[in-house]
Amino acid sequence: MTGKLHYEDLDIGRSFACGTYAVTKEEIVEFAQEFDPQPHHLDEEAAKNSMLGGLAASGWHVCAMTMRMFADHMIPRAAARGGAGSREARWMKPVRAGDVLRVEAVVTDTRESRGRPDIGHVTFECRVFNQREQVASIFMTPIISRRGQK
Amino acid sequence: MTGKLHYEDLDIGRSFACGTYAVTKEEIVEFAQEFDPQPHHLDEEAAKNSMLGGLAASGWHVCAMTMRMFADHMIPRAAARGGAGSREARWMKPVRAGDVLRVEAVVTDTRESRGRPDIGHVTFECRVFNQREQVASIFMTPIISRRGQK
Repeated sequence: MTGKLHYEDLDIGRSFACGTYAVTKEEIVEFAQEFDPQPHHLDEEAAKNSMLGGLAASGWHVCAMTMRMFADHMIPRAAARGGAGSREARWMKPVRAGDVLRVEAVVTDTRESRGRPDIGHVTFECRVFNQREQVASIFMTPIISRRGQK
Repeated sequence: MTGKLHYEDLDIGRSFACGTYAVTKEEIVEFAQEFDPQPHHLDEEAAKNSMLGGLAASGWHVCAMTMRMFADHMIPRAAARGGAGSREARWMKPVRAGDVLRVEAVVTDTRESRGRPDIGHVTFECRVFNQREQVASIFMTPIISRRGQK
């Protein structure tokens, strides 16, 4: 994995652009039908009377879309080995059909592994923006190899 | 919403069974192709050499499956109005094709809204089990109406 970013390279504050994701109504409804069949993720009319004020993506769909951008743009650059969880997901604003999302992944925390000298834990805050404003923060915490490890 | 559980009904420690979810290889691969295209979620051979030791579902897929059980079994029982995030997701053990997951949703925290007297925030720890052991904890934090509100 020479040339890849290792644990030692990922200083707190370092930031990485992770591309874009175009949100469609079809995908919002399809994800909701499969995983989160609440009326405000399925139906325009029902959504108008909900707290979201109109059809919007499931928060877990926002996490999944964010993972796609992180997997395409950040993971290939790093000596990543998988992850054991997410520290938090904050869904701040509705994600609508027609939005084009982009992610900025910022290193907010690093921690050496207690038991294993070959890996470390790195927390990335994935800040998700639409065309106008930030709509979510999804925390990704991949395990990253230390330098000198494959 | 008479008959539904309101904020005042959801005491810390109260626990709700949320049904089951049968995991298939097709769904693991399909979700990964769409949202988390890392080799250990896509390909048996590549997965054998990863930390997962074999093909396993994306952690975000585990969150989505858990949401489906929570949406089918918990949300209809409560005066729920949506959610603003998840406090944490812990992916403890690999989720494999052939697993039948079940969720136990336990109230771990309740908090009145600072600004709005009609709602409260309830944290459910969704404990996810396969046939043998716990595999994940996914925290769901829906907004729940207070009693006397619709």
